[in-house]
Amino acid sequence: MSVPVPSAPSAPSAPSAEIRSQAAARAEALAKPVGALGELENVAIWLAACQGVCPPTVPGNVRAVVFAGDHGVSAHGVSAYPREVTPAMVRTILAGGAGISVLAKINNVHLRVLDIAVDDDLAGLPVAVSAHKIRRSSGAINDQDACTANEIDRALAAGASIAEQEIAAGADLLIIGDLGIGNTTPAGALIAAVLGLSARKATGRGTGVDDAGLRRKQEVIDAALARAAGRSEPADLLAALGSADFAVAVGFLVTAAAAGVPVLLDGLIAVAEALLAERLSPGSKAWFAAGHRSPEPAQSLALADLGLTPLLDLGLRLGEGTGAVAAVPLVRAAAALLGEMALLADLQP
Amino acid sequence: MSVPVPSAPSAPSAPSAEIRSQAAARAEALAKPVGALGELENVAIWLAACQGVCPPTVPGNVRAVVFAGDHGVSAHGVSAYPREVTPAMVRTILAGGAGISVLAKINNVHLRVLDIAVDDDLAGLPVAVSAHKIRRSSGAINDQDACTANEIDRALAAGASIAEQEIAAGADLLIIGDLGIGNTTPAGALIAAVLGLSARKATGRGTGVDDAGLRRKQEVIDAALARAAGRSEPADLLAALGSADFAVAVGFLVTAAAAGVPVLLDGLIAVAEALLAERLSPGSKAWFAAGHRSPEPAQSLALADLGLTPLLDLGLRLGEGTGAVAAVPLVRAAAALLGEMALLADLQP
Repeated sequence: MSVPVPSAPSAPSAPSAEIRSQAAARAEALAKPVGALGELENVAIWLAACQGVCPPTVPGNVRAVVFAGDHGVSAHGVSAYPREVTPAMVRTILAGGAGISVLAKINNVHLRVLDIAVDDDLAGLPVAVSAHKIRRSSGAINDQDACTANEIDRALAAGASIAEQEIAAGADLLIIGDLGIGNTTPAGALIAAVLGLSARKATGRGTGVDDAGLRRKQEVIDAALARAAGRSEPADLLAALGSADFAVAVGFLVTAAAAGVPVLLDGLIAVAEALLAERLSPGSKAWFAAGHRSPEPAQSLALADLGLTPLLDLGLRLGEGTGAVAAVPLVRAAAALLGEMALLADLQP
Repeated sequence: MSVPVPSAPSAPSAPSAEIRSQAAARAEALAKPVGALGELENVAIWLAACQGVCPPTVPGNVRAVVFAGDHGVSAHGVSAYPREVTPAMVRTILAGGAGISVLAKINNVHLRVLDIAVDDDLAGLPVAVSAHKIRRSSGAINDQDACTANEIDRALAAGASIAEQEIAAGADLLIIGDLGIGNTTPAGALIAAVLGLSARKATGRGTGVDDAGLRRKQEVIDAALARAAGRSEPADLLAALGSADFAVAVGFLVTAAAAGVPVLLDGLIAVAEALLAERLSPGSKAWFAAGHRSPEPAQSLALADLGLTPLLDLGLRLGEGTGAVAAVPLVRAAAALLGEMALLADLQP
């Protein structure tokens, strides 16, 4: 019996090199010293190349999707919070009271939260919230695979389908958020496996574990890496070290890139997913920009591998997509500057 | 004959310590890990203390004023751009094509530009633009005072009057911007004089001078510091090393602080002015937050002296208030998060 093989994502094309050059030339010609808008110039040039239009349109329809899931490792003392927080926060997002809810509202970003692998039946919530659910919690990666190969295939396909829905809704810019107690542990393990790092280098304090928690987290990641030794295919790594919600996000990212829709990345989990997306579908990373730098050391290492420079560095470690949604006004400002500033040549003497 | 002495600014009161404590307690109680909103928590707490209200109101009426002036040192090869750019950029701001124009529009910030010491008569512009003009260009600080004591007194009074106008217009948050070819040289000289730095430590590349320009700039600052040796009173330093437009900004800042209206600082020039404002009216700095870190080394040194952590670090070196106006959405987001997020205690299990 063979496991059904999902259709491979179509390879992403590259953002337009011609428009990138035009946008860079326009940035140089604006009524300001050369390079004086710093990273805002880079993000505007990237956006123009992604859109294939110079100057770029200000992204009005920005859409964020939060993928929620529990992780078996949360029973192993790797988080400062109990697993019950995950379903409670799904409810809080829907009620408008989460950090991401407030940021999405004030920055005019469309927000959706999906239960992919929450260890709860989320009774009373709209069925759409759990329409793409893969399983209840992913496995504890220190002593078992997070998911089966079949679950990863279904999750990748679900992510593709969710991305297609957001693109069909007119997304100019996409954001992925994460929600799930314990999720910085599998994210650290995945980054370590892809980049060949030790558990020590890939482990941070997440939502705020103490020294003992940090040691337990390193031990869990160490055990997970030992257990997964020799596995290197992206889908296989997601099954061994990741989770169903991570695989949905990876499917979402490769589909966005293949469709040529730019994505603004959030913190540790989103960047780990982006790393896997790039390995699964090389060239995807050209469609990604980085919203913020997280205090997690592995996030910076993964950003460096992806060649991305974050817009914000505010010490945010909330997840949910908050770092990316907080950076949306900077992306819009960058696009407006490139489009609406006068040219140096047009200055009146 | 005695020079008219302007009324000393009233000493600022401190932002509310009680509300600061309430806001800090609320930030800890929000539905998120403790401290997970990083610098956004700090800025929300600061804003609450300034407003005397917890949670703080989201600042809707944000008002930026750009003070334009030329500087005698621009004839000494300290800038990559000619002096004629200053009046041209005043016109460009008014026409909506400057960087600050675009950022103010997209971030819903009220913008005003004033000619304080531009070396041009700005023919054809509304008279209000030059209503507070002090002189045509300030002096070249390497071989003469920038202004007379009387001009500094008039400039401080003008700044106070302009701040009062903005406050009367309902400002929730104020921003000052600078415009003037050559202005990073007097700003560096002022910071060096106040902090006791060498010219080398206080000199950066401004809008982008080459190595030869950087050396000339250091020589100019060195000569200015030698000429002003022994002078230490804020008004005296502004006369010796500053400019009329800088003095207007200092008058604006101390008046805002005395009135209890918070100010979001921009880059090198605004932070130099804030340093002088704090020396002129101790306690003013409690009403200031930092919008961005500029690549100018003296700006970081002055921020450290003021005890301020910037929100953005994007390599912006455009001036005009752009770094502060770009950061406004983060201040608004911070206030909204503190006010609108659910409390951890309210999470539904």
